[in-house]
Amino acid sequence: MKKYILKIDCNDEKGLIYRISDVIFKFGFNIAKNHEFVDHEINRFFYRAEIITENEIDKTAICGTLNAMLGGKANIRLKTSKKKDIVIFATKETHCLGDLLIKNYSNELNANILAVIANHEDLKNLVEKFDIPFFAIKSDGKERDEHEAEVLKVLEKFEFDYIILAKYMRILSPDFVGRFERKIINIHHSFLPAFIGANPYKQAHQRGVKIIGATAHFVNNDLDEGPIITQDVISINHEMSWQDMRKSGRNVERNVLAAALDLVFDDRVFMYNNKTVIF
Amino acid sequence: MKKYILKIDCNDEKGLIYRISDVIFKFGFNIAKNHEFVDHEINRFFYRAEIITENEIDKTAICGTLNAMLGGKANIRLKTSKKKDIVIFATKETHCLGDLLIKNYSNELNANILAVIANHEDLKNLVEKFDIPFFAIKSDGKERDEHEAEVLKVLEKFEFDYIILAKYMRILSPDFVGRFERKIINIHHSFLPAFIGANPYKQAHQRGVKIIGATAHFVNNDLDEGPIITQDVISINHEMSWQDMRKSGRNVERNVLAAALDLVFDDRVFMYNNKTVIF
Amino acid sequence: MKKYILKIDCNDEKGLIYRISDVIFKFGFNIAKNHEFVDHEINRFFYRAEIITENEIDKTAICGTLNAMLGGKANIRLKTSKKKDIVIFATKETHCLGDLLIKNYSNELNANILAVIANHEDLKNLVEKFDIPFFAIKSDGKERDEHEAEVLKVLEKFEFDYIILAKYMRILSPDFVGRFERKIINIHHSFLPAFIGANPYKQAHQRGVKIIGATAHFVNNDLDEGPIITQDVISINHEMSWQDMRKSGRNVERNVLAAALDLVFDDRVFMYNNKTVIF
Amino acid sequence: MKKYILKIDCNDEKGLIYRISDVIFKFGFNIAKNHEFVDHEINRFFYRAEIITENEIDKTAICGTLNAMLGGKANIRLKTSKKKDIVIFATKETHCLGDLLIKNYSNELNANILAVIANHEDLKNLVEKFDIPFFAIKSDGKERDEHEAEVLKVLEKFEFDYIILAKYMRILSPDFVGRFERKIINIHHSFLPAFIGANPYKQAHQRGVKIIGATAHFVNNDLDEGPIITQDVISINHEMSWQDMRKSGRNVERNVLAAALDLVFDDRVFMYNNKTVIF
Repeated sequence: MKKYILKIDCNDEKGLIYRISDVIFKFGFNIAKNHEFVDHEINRFFYRAEIITENEIDKTAICGTLNAMLGGKANIRLKTSKKKDIVIFATKETHCLGDLLIKNYSNELNANILAVIANHEDLKNLVEKFDIPFFAIKSDGKERDEHEAEVLKVLEKFEFDYIILAKYMRILSPDFVGRFERKIINIHHSFLPAFIGANPYKQAHQRGVKIIGATAHFVNNDLDEGPIITQDVISINHEMSWQDMRKSGRNVERNVLAAALDLVFDDRVFMYNNKTVIF
Repeated sequence: MKKYILKIDCNDEKGLIYRISDVIFKFGFNIAKNHEFVDHEINRFFYRAEIITENEIDKTAICGTLNAMLGGKANIRLKTSKKKDIVIFATKETHCLGDLLIKNYSNELNANILAVIANHEDLKNLVEKFDIPFFAIKSDGKERDEHEAEVLKVLEKFEFDYIILAKYMRILSPDFVGRFERKIINIHHSFLPAFIGANPYKQAHQRGVKIIGATAHFVNNDLDEGPIITQDVISINHEMSWQDMRKSGRNVERNVLAAALDLVFDDRVFMYNNKTVIF
Repeated sequence: MKKYILKIDCNDEKGLIYRISDVIFKFGFNIAKNHEFVDHEINRFFYRAEIITENEIDKTAICGTLNAMLGGKANIRLKTSKKKDIVIFATKETHCLGDLLIKNYSNELNANILAVIANHEDLKNLVEKFDIPFFAIKSDGKERDEHEAEVLKVLEKFEFDYIILAKYMRILSPDFVGRFERKIINIHHSFLPAFIGANPYKQAHQRGVKIIGATAHFVNNDLDEGPIITQDVISINHEMSWQDMRKSGRNVERNVLAAALDLVFDDRVFMYNNKTVIF
Repeated sequence: MKKYILKIDCNDEKGLIYRISDVIFKFGFNIAKNHEFVDHEINRFFYRAEIITENEIDKTAICGTLNAMLGGKANIRLKTSKKKDIVIFATKETHCLGDLLIKNYSNELNANILAVIANHEDLKNLVEKFDIPFFAIKSDGKERDEHEAEVLKVLEKFEFDYIILAKYMRILSPDFVGRFERKIINIHHSFLPAFIGANPYKQAHQRGVKIIGATAHFVNNDLDEGPIITQDVISINHEMSWQDMRKSGRNVERNVLAAALDLVFDDRVFMYNNKTVIF
C-alpha cells in the first residue's frame, strides 16, 4: 500500500470539497482522511487528503483534471508520502542537533540528514559519530556575503527539501533566504512575538516573566517574524537566573523543533501570508 | 443565515465522503466545514458537517436520501444548531454551578438552564438570585429508589437535552442512568482512570502524585467509567495538603466541565463503545 | 491559634536567616514555615515566615528588635494573616468579576469585596444580586481627570487594601496610579510582553501565534508593564477567529487573575524593580 | 568556591531551623539558600541548605554537633555538590538513553555515565559511539535470578550512586531492588497510578483518555509503585492509534526522566514512606 498526499489551496467557492472528492473518486481512488479549512477573512480554501492505494497514481492526469476543474488558479500538490531530505545548520549547541541525530539514527525522524553545516568546529566530533558529513564553514572575520557564498557552495552538493536551523546563531541575508523560500525552518528561543532578537532568556529574566517558551517558524526576511509552526512554554520562577532559564529552555526548544518538523515532514502545513494552517 | 449540523456514523466503506457530499450538493447546499474520522480497529466512520444556508433545509428529504444511500444502517442526525436545554444536578459546592450560572446569565453558555436540582438546601439562595427554579430534594434518610423517584417527578416538568452533574455527590442507579442514556454528563475530580471513587484528592495526596486533574465524561453504569470528553491537569507539590489540592482542583474541575459542555452543546461529540470522537 | 506573616527585604549580608530566626526564637515564637531568596544581581535578600502561635505577638517589640539588628535599613512587615479588603473596577465583562463574586459568596476568596465600580451600567444587576455596592461612574464624554475625580470620591468611602482591575477597559492616569502604588492589580488579556495595548486577541490572530495567554500584574505607569504576578497560556489553532480566541481566552484570564489574587492576598508576593518574588 | 549540600530529616520540634542555622553559623559558614518543610500528618521535618564557602568544611565535626543537638535521631547528610556516578539499564529504545548520552557528551548532565547494561544487543552501536562501556546481558531463555546474577557481576566493577532504568523493559526481583534501596530510578510510560503494568499506551487507547503522561519514580518492590519524582502529560485525541501515542509519549518520557534526574543529581529530593519532598 502506498500513501499519497494531496494538498490544494485556492480561492473559496461553493462545493469545493464535493468537486475535489468527485475527481478523486472518478479516478478510482479512496480518500482515507481529509481536512479542509476556509479562511473567510481572505476567502481562501485549504485542503489536504490522504489517499491510500495499492495501484500507482497517475499524478499528471489527476492534477491536470483538478487544475482544469479549479480554473487553473489553485496550488495543487500531489506526492507520495516519503522521507524528506534535509540539511541542518548549527553553531555550537547540541540539544536540538543531538535530538535530530538520535532520531535519525533510530529511524524516528521522517527525514534523512544529508549534511550538517556549522560556523564553528565544535560539533564536528558529535556529527561524525553518526557518519553524517560535517562542514565547518567558519564565519569569524568574514563578511556575511563571503561566508554565505561558501555555504552555498557546499549546499550545491545536496538535493534537499528543507534547511533546518538547529540553533544556528547567525542571521541569514535576504538574498540567501530568498533562494530557499518556504524551505528554511528555525527554532527561536522565545515565545514569539515576545523577545525577538538576541539573548531572549536575558530579556525574559530582566522583564520578570513567569513563563518562557520557544517557537519554530519558517524563515522569511523579517527577523524572527516568519510563519509560526509550533510553540510551547514552561513555567519559571524568581529563583532562576537567565542561565537557568536557558538550561530549562533547551528542552523546550528541542521539543518544539521536533514537533514542528514532524508536522512539516508529514506534509501537514500550509503557509500563506504570515501564517500557517496545520492539519 | 441558519446553521445546520449533520452528524453521521456508520460502518466504513469506500467513497463515503464523496457520496455524502454528493447528496448535500445535489440538494443545493454548501458544506461550510466538515470533519471525518475512521476508526480502523472497528471499521467505523464518523462524519460531521456544518451547512450554512439562507433557505430552510428539508431535513426529512435529505436524511431519507442519505439513509437510502447508506443502506439504512447509519446513524444520521441533521439539526439546526441551537441552544440546548439542560437541568443541573448539584450538592453543595458552588464552583461548577456558579460558573454555569454566570455564563448562562451573560449569554456565554450554549444552553438554557431550566432548573437546578440538589440533594441539599445550601445552593437555593445562589440559584434563585439568577431566577432559575431550584428544587431541594433531600436524600438523607431515603432509599436511593425513593429519592430518585422524587427527582424523576421534578424532571418530568422539563423537556431537556442533557442532565449536568455539577459536583452531584450521589451515585445514580442503573435504572436512572438507563432512562437518560447519552444524556448525563459528569465532572469527576480526578484524572481518570486514576483515583476512581470517593475523595480522589485524599487518594492523590496519599499516593504522592505530582499532578492532579479532572475529567468530564458521559455517565454510564460503570462508576466513573463512561466515555471521556475532556481532561485537564495541574502540577502540585509536597507542600499541599489534600485540602489544598481540593481547592486548586476546583478551578480545574470548573474549566474541564465548561470545556466539555462547549463541545457537547456544539454537537461536536460522538460516543461509541466507551470512547468519544470529538471534532 | 493565630497565624502571623513576617516579610523582610533588605540588602543581603551573611547570616541573615540565622539572625532573624534568632530574634523570633528569643521572643518565644516558632517559625512554622519560611522561605528566602537572594537576588545576587542586586544583592537583595527576601524573606517570608509564618508564625503560628496561641499567644498574641507584640509586633512593635519584634519589629523594633529586627529593625535595630538589620541596621534600620530593611523593609519589615509583620501582620496577622487576615482577609484583605478590595474594591473591584470593571467595565462590561462578567467572567472575571463573576468568578470573584461567586468565590466571595462561597467564602473561597481570601478577601472581602467592599464595592464594584464600573464605567458602564451593565454589571449593576449582577453585582447587586450579591448585595455588594455597585457604582456606575460613566466615562463617556468625560475627560479622564474628571472621571477619575468621581471615582476617587467613591473610593474615599472605603478602606481597602487592593484595587482589582477585573477587565476594566480604561487606562488609569499616572496621578491615579501614583496614589495607590503597589495596590492595583490588573489582568491583561495577553501573554506579556507580547501584544501590549488594545485588542491583543486581534493582534495574536493577525500574527498567527499558536498559543495565547493572560497576565496578572501590578499596575505602574508603564502601560501593561508592571511587575508580573502570574501568567498562563492555552493552545490555539488556525480554525479560531479572534473572537473564538477571546472566548477561550476568557477562561485563562479568569484563572490567572484568581491565581494571582490567591498569592497576593496570602502575602506571598514581594515586588522590587519591575519584578516579583513569590514564595 | 565550593558548594556543600546539607540535608536533614527528623521528627519535628520547635526551633529546628534556628538551631540548625545556629550550628552552621557558629562553625563560621553562611547558608546561601535553604528550604524546609514539615509534614504535619507524620510530624516530620525536612531541611536542605546550600553552603558556599572558600574554606574546606569539617564534615565530621559539623555532623557530629548537629547529631548531638538533634538527639541522635536525625538523618544528616553533608556533602560536596558533585557529579553523580550512574549506570544505565536499557533494552532497545533510544529516546531516553540517547538524550542522556547527548547531555553527558555536552557536559549538561550532572552525572557521569559509567556503563550501559542492556538485555539486548541493539543499543551497543549507539553507546559505543560515545566511548561508554556497553554490556549486553541477554535475558532470553534465562531465569530471572540467573540473569540478575550476571548483571550484578558487571555492576560489581563500578562504584555508582544511581541505577537509571531508561526504558528497561524487565521487572527487577525484590532481592535485586533490595540491594540498591533508594538508588534505582525508573521512567514509566504512563501517568501513574493510571495504567500500571504492560503496554500503558494500549491501555490508554482502549480507555479513551484525552491526556497521556509519564512518571519518573524510585523503584521499590511494588510494581510501578515507588515514590514519584516527576510527572508530565500531553493531550491526545481520537485520531491517534496507540502507536501514535507511544511515539508522542516518547518525548514526554525523555523529558520527565531528564527533569527527575536533574532534581535527584542536585540532591533536591527526599524520600519517605511512599512519597518525595522536592526542594
